[in-house]
Amino acid sequence: MTITTLHHGPVTRQATGRLTVTTQGGDMVPITGAVQDWVKETGIRNGLLTCFCQHTSASLTIQENTDPDVRLDLMDALERLASTKESYRHSLEGSDDMPAHIRTSLTDTTLSVPVLNGRALFGVWQGLYVLEHRSRSHQRIIILQLTGT
Amino acid sequence: MTITTLHHGPVTRQATGRLTVTTQGGDMVPITGAVQDWVKETGIRNGLLTCFCQHTSASLTIQENTDPDVRLDLMDALERLASTKESYRHSLEGSDDMPAHIRTSLTDTTLSVPVLNGRALFGVWQGLYVLEHRSRSHQRIIILQLTGT
Amino acid sequence: MTITTLHHGPVTRQATGRLTVTTQGGDMVPITGAVQDWVKETGIRNGLLTCFCQHTSASLTIQENTDPDVRLDLMDALERLASTKESYRHSLEGSDDMPAHIRTSLTDTTLSVPVLNGRALFGVWQGLYVLEHRSRSHQRIIILQLTGT
Repeated sequence: MTITTLHHGPVTRQATGRLTVTTQGGDMVPITGAVQDWVKETGIRNGLLTCFCQHTSASLTIQENTDPDVRLDLMDALERLASTKESYRHSLEGSDDMPAHIRTSLTDTTLSVPVLNGRALFGVWQGLYVLEHRSRSHQRIIILQLTGT
Repeated sequence: MTITTLHHGPVTRQATGRLTVTTQGGDMVPITGAVQDWVKETGIRNGLLTCFCQHTSASLTIQENTDPDVRLDLMDALERLASTKESYRHSLEGSDDMPAHIRTSLTDTTLSVPVLNGRALFGVWQGLYVLEHRSRSHQRIIILQLTGT
Repeated sequence: MTITTLHHGPVTRQATGRLTVTTQGGDMVPITGAVQDWVKETGIRNGLLTCFCQHTSASLTIQENTDPDVRLDLMDALERLASTKESYRHSLEGSDDMPAHIRTSLTDTTLSVPVLNGRALFGVWQGLYVLEHRSRSHQRIIILQLTGT
């Protein structure tokens, strides 16, 4: 195990943004490109980017960004882990609502990614996605916060 | 998909706090209000708040803040996913200990929330909770860290 | 519930590092010591440390740092939750690949830990681990980012 220091520098500035995305229902929407564009636009070259999902029936995750089957398999796995066929106390908002809350807790509401030379440091195979756990289309809001220089 | 920049400003200060909470056992304790009060008290108006749970059998999550049934259903779901009836190698500390460790890994030890105009930007339906995965009462410590201006 | 402020101070600097680790396959590699050493080396005494795993079939988690059985039980639990015996669409890279992607989403890609007096504030029983979800050995990269003073 080795650790190499890549960068040392000042911290002086921050930016906050609001990303609005329309989901289809039961889908995963890629937002990596839009987020990278916003990082560039802020002019902050080095620092830490945080993405925060303001919902309890949609969430964030980082997943394989190439084979669309991965996303289908992940959503199937979440259905097995928190099924719409299970019986729940909280059922007034539909059989997909409580599973959506559970799947949100099992995945991520917050994700932070280091930024270097104007780019969030996602790995080659990593994509950032908004997970829509409800079965219908929704408008979802992700807050972006970038601290650095 | 659109991104709107809400804020651009300096970063100059930080504060660190320690939240102490007594759980009942198998419960979810809401801490949103206490955390918002502390953010206000620091005088830091814009930045990033991070909450860090110092335990491996208790954790954090963001959940629906209105219907108490959601919390009961979530705790039931975690019992299905990591059951106290399963057999484990690690069993000396009680049948609820290893499930508590697994549930901690499935939920959150860290949660970061952007802060704007003196308020952590939780969504309307979002509440921040400490999850007690052990069956008895414990005193739990959450470290709060706020970077901004 | 009480909150005590432990520290108030300036934010002026940041450091970014790259940790490289070789996993064995299906194992959990402790990195707490290496990460604490790097924090000390940066000279940043107070702030926020973020660890970011650049992969989609390996991840991070914080777990009990004493009994090795806890790690075996956790890996068994992840096999039950996302089994290599399940059938998946995405199967070309081996039966352990899609389960690895799912387990990555269920655990953590990002973990942030407050730093005080030159030490990341892990609890007494907390250890930071890289989880190798593939069955063979891999080289994995974790990006470390520290903002503070």
